[in-house]
Amino acid sequence: METNASTKIKSPGGKTSIIDCDIHATIPLDGIKPYLPRIYREQVETWGRRLPGQNHMYLNGGTNGSMQEHQPPRNKEEDSYLNYIRAQHIDKFNLEYGIMTGSDYGVHTTPDTDYAAALCSASNDYVIEHYLSRDSRLKGSVHIPKQDPILAAKEIDRVGSHPDMVQVIVSNGAIKPYGNRMYEPIYEACVRNNLPFAIHVSMEGIGINNPPTGAGYVSYYAEYRAARTQIMMAHMASFIFEGVFVKYPDLKVIMVEAGMMWVAPFIWRLDQDWKALRHQTPWVKEPPSEYYRKHMKVTSQPIELPPQKEMFMPMMEAIYARENLMFASDYPHWDFDSPLLAFPKMDEEMKERIFYQNAAELYRLPARKQAAGGARA
Amino acid sequence: METNASTKIKSPGGKTSIIDCDIHATIPLDGIKPYLPRIYREQVETWGRRLPGQNHMYLNGGTNGSMQEHQPPRNKEEDSYLNYIRAQHIDKFNLEYGIMTGSDYGVHTTPDTDYAAALCSASNDYVIEHYLSRDSRLKGSVHIPKQDPILAAKEIDRVGSHPDMVQVIVSNGAIKPYGNRMYEPIYEACVRNNLPFAIHVSMEGIGINNPPTGAGYVSYYAEYRAARTQIMMAHMASFIFEGVFVKYPDLKVIMVEAGMMWVAPFIWRLDQDWKALRHQTPWVKEPPSEYYRKHMKVTSQPIELPPQKEMFMPMMEAIYARENLMFASDYPHWDFDSPLLAFPKMDEEMKERIFYQNAAELYRLPARKQAAGGARA
Repeated sequence: METNASTKIKSPGGKTSIIDCDIHATIPLDGIKPYLPRIYREQVETWGRRLPGQNHMYLNGGTNGSMQEHQPPRNKEEDSYLNYIRAQHIDKFNLEYGIMTGSDYGVHTTPDTDYAAALCSASNDYVIEHYLSRDSRLKGSVHIPKQDPILAAKEIDRVGSHPDMVQVIVSNGAIKPYGNRMYEPIYEACVRNNLPFAIHVSMEGIGINNPPTGAGYVSYYAEYRAARTQIMMAHMASFIFEGVFVKYPDLKVIMVEAGMMWVAPFIWRLDQDWKALRHQTPWVKEPPSEYYRKHMKVTSQPIELPPQKEMFMPMMEAIYARENLMFASDYPHWDFDSPLLAFPKMDEEMKERIFYQNAAELYRLPARKQAAGGARA
Repeated sequence: METNASTKIKSPGGKTSIIDCDIHATIPLDGIKPYLPRIYREQVETWGRRLPGQNHMYLNGGTNGSMQEHQPPRNKEEDSYLNYIRAQHIDKFNLEYGIMTGSDYGVHTTPDTDYAAALCSASNDYVIEHYLSRDSRLKGSVHIPKQDPILAAKEIDRVGSHPDMVQVIVSNGAIKPYGNRMYEPIYEACVRNNLPFAIHVSMEGIGINNPPTGAGYVSYYAEYRAARTQIMMAHMASFIFEGVFVKYPDLKVIMVEAGMMWVAPFIWRLDQDWKALRHQTPWVKEPPSEYYRKHMKVTSQPIELPPQKEMFMPMMEAIYARENLMFASDYPHWDFDSPLLAFPKMDEEMKERIFYQNAAELYRLPARKQAAGGARA
């Protein structure tokens, strides 16, 4: 892959602006230490991160999960990470906006809830100071200690009103599907702060989370990746059948990195079962596909591309891609999707909506004139 | 629904013979008691069935899970249940064959493994004597105490060579995905006895099984039904990536009652991930979709029908329905699929393969002249 920052690549089709809904940037432990309370700063100095990790259970791809080309600087100069992802990704693909989704989801699955809360706050503050305030193209995600929904809501209220924080984010791995009423304080805080709720694949079966499938632990990473989608399905059905969108009509939910084409047969099934069984959940007034269309978004990477090319567009329509799909690259992970190569040919309107408009509307991102480097300073 | 046995209905399209791959017939506790060892017979007399049950956790549909029209006789005359399902289903739809899949999957999730083994043996013997030996159209499934794969293999060897036993069957709910090596004695016995291995949805998250989703317990039956498919996905990925079909090239696996259209995006995803990650599981020599095509079958009910009618046939081709799909009615459950109504229009060849040929080949069922009642006696 070309790593020269001066090599600007025009956006897909040449005209479409790009919002990338899933960028992982380095958030170094040394960097967030100053934001931690003294007790945890001292613990971290002795014990390190001390968080459950996926890689202790399941292999990943690439080099430690990232593209081999991604080798961020190891020195601690303040802007070095930012400059690196600018050169490698943001400038290179001339992104209009990039949504940062965080770098360590282990916080969502440690049993030490106060430590999780401290790490979330420190990491949120670090991201604001070292990324968001230095490049107006970058937007942030509020990590929360979801182990304690009341504490989580406090963190959303603390930092969620920052103009560059555009969503709340949690790992896909969980102990209960996210429609469960135990999470309600989180959704109240999301609505109060006008923030969508994003679920990003990670930490399935790790730490305090439930095993990664309904049949227990899997053995290999390929199975593990498949299991992530299954868990996202469970969250989606849970949001709908628990009536979360009836209780919180302004809530939006984003499903990040769990694939996309699976949504089609899944909503066919949910709609059928709802028709037959809706007397059991009378608060679910509309077919499940309607709640999906009105309240949920799905990001593109990784795309399950049908080998039968003629099925691509019908599948895109079946998942309501025109309104519900948003492009994500997952930079810098090994299964990165280049905006130039991710999709087969689409009509201009669909391209515009997937690469830009759907995310711009959801995150309320104003159209902006693309400056050379996009830096505010 | 018409319940008069004299109302014979011609098979779909008038010419196609029908093999129904999922029929549940009553196996009464009083009926199997004589087949139990004395210790369990006495326990059953005091405590009843004593098995974990889905309905204690999650609602079902219809009347206790069955169609309202299904009201089998309560007297204990030897042939009354058999005569009832003949009149209600087998004669009515003029079935060529019907595969009986059992009536109580709680045996697969009790912690009392020897009790499970005794119940499986008793139920298998009852089915042979009271159904299979009295109607040559009915074929049976060997229930096994999967809690102990060695004991399970013994039951397969004990009863699996009976000419009317055509498969081994277990519940979809499990503590480990079925590709795990702990189950190998079962697959050795399947191959030794020339029997396919069927996974039937049931008992997800019940008794000793893992919670029904990778995010823990769901709240409602509609979610629960969606979760069953997720678990079947986990089993499918597990069989493929653990290399079960490499170790047992003659093994066939049937996925019963978990839907069918989901297979398409699922194998697209598995094939892509295998391409990128196959160095991690080098024993998986072919793309996952090839193992599915050669070793797995899926039954039809419940069918996720696309609301976009023009997608039906492309989806059928994408799941390789011509070779891999077999019709199932799930009689007498509330979500029963009539062979006359289950499918939209298909070409004759596909209809013939789904309703008859695929099952006839898999179960090695000879073509037979349809006798009026099909009874041997």
